[in-house]
Amino acid sequence: MLMDDQAAEQIPVFEDILSASERIKGIVRETPVISDPLLNRDLGCEVWLKCENLQRTGAFKFRGASNAVALLDERGQAGDVATHSSGNHGAALALAASMHNRGCKVVMPENSVKTKVEAVRRYGGEIIFCPAGQQQREQGLARLVASGCIPIPPYDYADIICGQGTATVELAAQNPGLDIILTPVGGGGLISGSAIAAKELIPGVTILGVEPEGAADTALSLRRGKRVDQYPVDTIADGLRAIVGVMNFEIIRENVSKVLTVSETEIIDAMAMVWQQLRLLIEPSSATVIAAIKAHPGEFSDKRVGVIISGGNIDLQQLPFKT
Amino acid sequence: MLMDDQAAEQIPVFEDILSASERIKGIVRETPVISDPLLNRDLGCEVWLKCENLQRTGAFKFRGASNAVALLDERGQAGDVATHSSGNHGAALALAASMHNRGCKVVMPENSVKTKVEAVRRYGGEIIFCPAGQQQREQGLARLVASGCIPIPPYDYADIICGQGTATVELAAQNPGLDIILTPVGGGGLISGSAIAAKELIPGVTILGVEPEGAADTALSLRRGKRVDQYPVDTIADGLRAIVGVMNFEIIRENVSKVLTVSETEIIDAMAMVWQQLRLLIEPSSATVIAAIKAHPGEFSDKRVGVIISGGNIDLQQLPFKT
Repeated sequence: MLMDDQAAEQIPVFEDILSASERIKGIVRETPVISDPLLNRDLGCEVWLKCENLQRTGAFKFRGASNAVALLDERGQAGDVATHSSGNHGAALALAASMHNRGCKVVMPENSVKTKVEAVRRYGGEIIFCPAGQQQREQGLARLVASGCIPIPPYDYADIICGQGTATVELAAQNPGLDIILTPVGGGGLISGSAIAAKELIPGVTILGVEPEGAADTALSLRRGKRVDQYPVDTIADGLRAIVGVMNFEIIRENVSKVLTVSETEIIDAMAMVWQQLRLLIEPSSATVIAAIKAHPGEFSDKRVGVIISGGNIDLQQLPFKT
Repeated sequence: MLMDDQAAEQIPVFEDILSASERIKGIVRETPVISDPLLNRDLGCEVWLKCENLQRTGAFKFRGASNAVALLDERGQAGDVATHSSGNHGAALALAASMHNRGCKVVMPENSVKTKVEAVRRYGGEIIFCPAGQQQREQGLARLVASGCIPIPPYDYADIICGQGTATVELAAQNPGLDIILTPVGGGGLISGSAIAAKELIPGVTILGVEPEGAADTALSLRRGKRVDQYPVDTIADGLRAIVGVMNFEIIRENVSKVLTVSETEIIDAMAMVWQQLRLLIEPSSATVIAAIKAHPGEFSDKRVGVIISGGNIDLQQLPFKT
């Protein structure tokens, strides 16, 4: 299945990701990579965790947002930016915009988690509430664009994909000897950027993704050979509830060997394991990568596995542990 | 007040800490130092967090234990090691011993938290349970020593103090321009090693400590000019429930300007703040340093403050947040 020409032109190449790395150097944190012998023993493979939970705004999303806003400057596009988001992309864009002296307006559903609303405000974003629902969010954003704001989409957008890929550029420099790169898949911004970077930087690497069973639209799309555009989403992993983007799906189909799935219980158990054994505060979306290694040992046995820990934004009022 | 000569001879000097740094290099993790502009704005000073929660075994305790066990090798002292511990020192000593092919026996109270028991076992320690109580713990350890084990005390011991001081040697190299070093105070191993290192490495630095109001024996001892040896302890900060050690108190009295105190509510609020805004999984004992900056702004206003985040071992079944 071919993409239309316009979309095909937009797919970024490795050099675009390298440029993004240069562009956002010193603005994003170079996050640490952690490995733990006892975790490796338990998992039966050598795991290297790229800690984007320690990235500014608490997620890899700040990489893409920083790249996208910096590129507006380079292209001479003045004006405030806008997006719709119930989570990490809104906070990341707010901070990136404020660092470039631009305003940022974020359309958020009225039922958004309070801590996520506070985070967007904290980073300088202005919130426009809308009724819950994809259509309402898009209408809200359309009004902002009509009023002159520049829209920055969360994942289905080359500048964002390139920014997200910079985490893997760092990881490959921090540890060049990896057999597998494994990332969570939501809208697909992280895995598509990671895949383009890894294929160039790590010879022979295999790219794997993971989705919650309750948001496994990409796995289904791969089985069908065609992107599905809706899915009955039900998962604790709030960062992975999006449907994979059009450009993202094309990149995944080309570069990703497989998208594994994990259950809600496996996600929560893996999150508890990482909190307690590695003392990393990771959000449920990030726990999916460790859950995948436990649930699908045959894919990882004795391999050197680089995993992107995507974020660490949790809601203390909705922790999944029995206290 | 003078110490007796024997104790005075044991107090380590800066060169001992430098030697410890060389000795445990590559064995302990060089932990990252994190600063956050928005946190700084909220706190009214420039805070640099030395993340020992990301140290192996989840606490700075692994530094002291690694140094103490390595020194046994250097001194030709063969045999298993032993200690009594309800927490982080036991796990740290177990891992350090296993890395030197020594057995490690840990006397633990029967009412110890399950996850802490599991951690000691996980790192290769053998547990001997005893009834709860300081006397019972010491009797249990005495029996192990009588059977030939080498005791490694948790804080009132020069080799341990030197190991704990290595966190500040790293911190001073990572950020030489600090006005204040602030650490939690339990038995005093961390602050005494930190103070000796900082006074040498950071010209003009002020050393401050912090205790929970419910375990403020060191603050009381400083007011009285004499170490108290008991205190009605009641705090969520389980790592800080110990009474300050004899040697530790002498070092504190000589080098530490002040030991501040914080309430339980201030500790829990600070912990929530660090989890959510910095995505660092810190234990209540470590939250005391951020609580102290919030509760005593006059001490820190516009200063550059290095804080040691002592550990990240939490019990998921006893989280202090309302879910």
